[in-house]
Amino acid sequence: MKVKVIEIKKSVFAENEKDADALRNELKNKGVYLLNLMSSPGSGKTTTLIQTLNRIKDKVRVAVMEADIDSDVDAVKIKEATGVSSIQLHTGGMCHLDAEMTRQGLDNVALADVDLVVLENVGNLVCPAEFDTGAVRNAMILSVPEGDDKPLKYPLMFTVCDLVLINKMDVAPYFDFDLERCKNNIHQRNPKAKIIPISAKTGEGVDAFADWLLNEVHTWKNS
Amino acid sequence: MKVKVIEIKKSVFAENEKDADALRNELKNKGVYLLNLMSSPGSGKTTTLIQTLNRIKDKVRVAVMEADIDSDVDAVKIKEATGVSSIQLHTGGMCHLDAEMTRQGLDNVALADVDLVVLENVGNLVCPAEFDTGAVRNAMILSVPEGDDKPLKYPLMFTVCDLVLINKMDVAPYFDFDLERCKNNIHQRNPKAKIIPISAKTGEGVDAFADWLLNEVHTWKNS
Repeated sequence: MKVKVIEIKKSVFAENEKDADALRNELKNKGVYLLNLMSSPGSGKTTTLIQTLNRIKDKVRVAVMEADIDSDVDAVKIKEATGVSSIQLHTGGMCHLDAEMTRQGLDNVALADVDLVVLENVGNLVCPAEFDTGAVRNAMILSVPEGDDKPLKYPLMFTVCDLVLINKMDVAPYFDFDLERCKNNIHQRNPKAKIIPISAKTGEGVDAFADWLLNEVHTWKNS
Repeated sequence: MKVKVIEIKKSVFAENEKDADALRNELKNKGVYLLNLMSSPGSGKTTTLIQTLNRIKDKVRVAVMEADIDSDVDAVKIKEATGVSSIQLHTGGMCHLDAEMTRQGLDNVALADVDLVVLENVGNLVCPAEFDTGAVRNAMILSVPEGDDKPLKYPLMFTVCDLVLINKMDVAPYFDFDLERCKNNIHQRNPKAKIIPISAKTGEGVDAFADWLLNEVHTWKNS
């Protein structure tokens, strides 16, 4: 069936790539790996992070930056549940972080004492995908209740992510969610994307994510 | 527990309020009610809309505008499932609609033949809240799997909405979701918000939303 499609145009955002590359180089020189973790609101970013940090914190020196429009509930939760150093970035209403904003956050992290910084970006499948934060890798969490069609509707997010975690696999029986269809939709956008199904609640798949992350940090520091 | 909080500032978006008021006045003169429906990706906007349209389409002349970054799956789905006139707005990567973009969409709707236009905004809890589209009312859908804490983390969205639908109530037993806590969190942001728990899957609560909407349109046209 055909429907009418109207293209609404607006000017694009300011150039941010140079800043991001400069930040990435600086982090490389300091031996710090930055992971940019993105998702919708409510996909389970914070719970996934807590499960993961508890698996890796004795193997790698790690800090967390929690970006949020308001509130510090996530940074507090992370610190309480893992003991990992965690700061909260308030974006003042902004819907994403760019490289300059990420740098402002990193200025508050003792970079000489960490190997890995995880940036939990603002909960949003649209804007964060458009801005390179200077991270080494982009990862995202898609949760089962959001639906297996999301890669079709938020194409850029899935294109820019090196890793997609599919979270809340424990509730898959209660939703019309087809894992193979979801994987196909993701690979249609990004054939190289690594996909790990997980449940932050039961712990399923979190070891695989932790191993991926530790290997990434090791490779980055030794390349 | 206290954690470090860093305020990152960026310039705010351009003034949009005059455009929105002008559009609202124009719609008032034409006897057309515009509802701006917002939510996260995957909260069930389209399914809710299909259920609702099938209940109201014989009582009110209605058209739908589906805003999306890409794809026309939603507009096609609506048209196929309800027969209601539906157009797709492509935002060209933009994360929200403002009043001018909404007007561009409305230029493609036969306004003389409709009483109600439902605008399904881009799936995003952040940016759409910042831009008055010119709608008479803002409504949003929060779904159970997203969590009852979302009003704390996305305050503006809950502040600007006159109506909050809490969707996917059918899966509430499988999630740590407390309806009363959720209502309290919403009313903390917006004491006047009307809240209707629904399940677009089972139909629970959709009659109440349909009744609210029909009453709204009736009042707008006769005030």
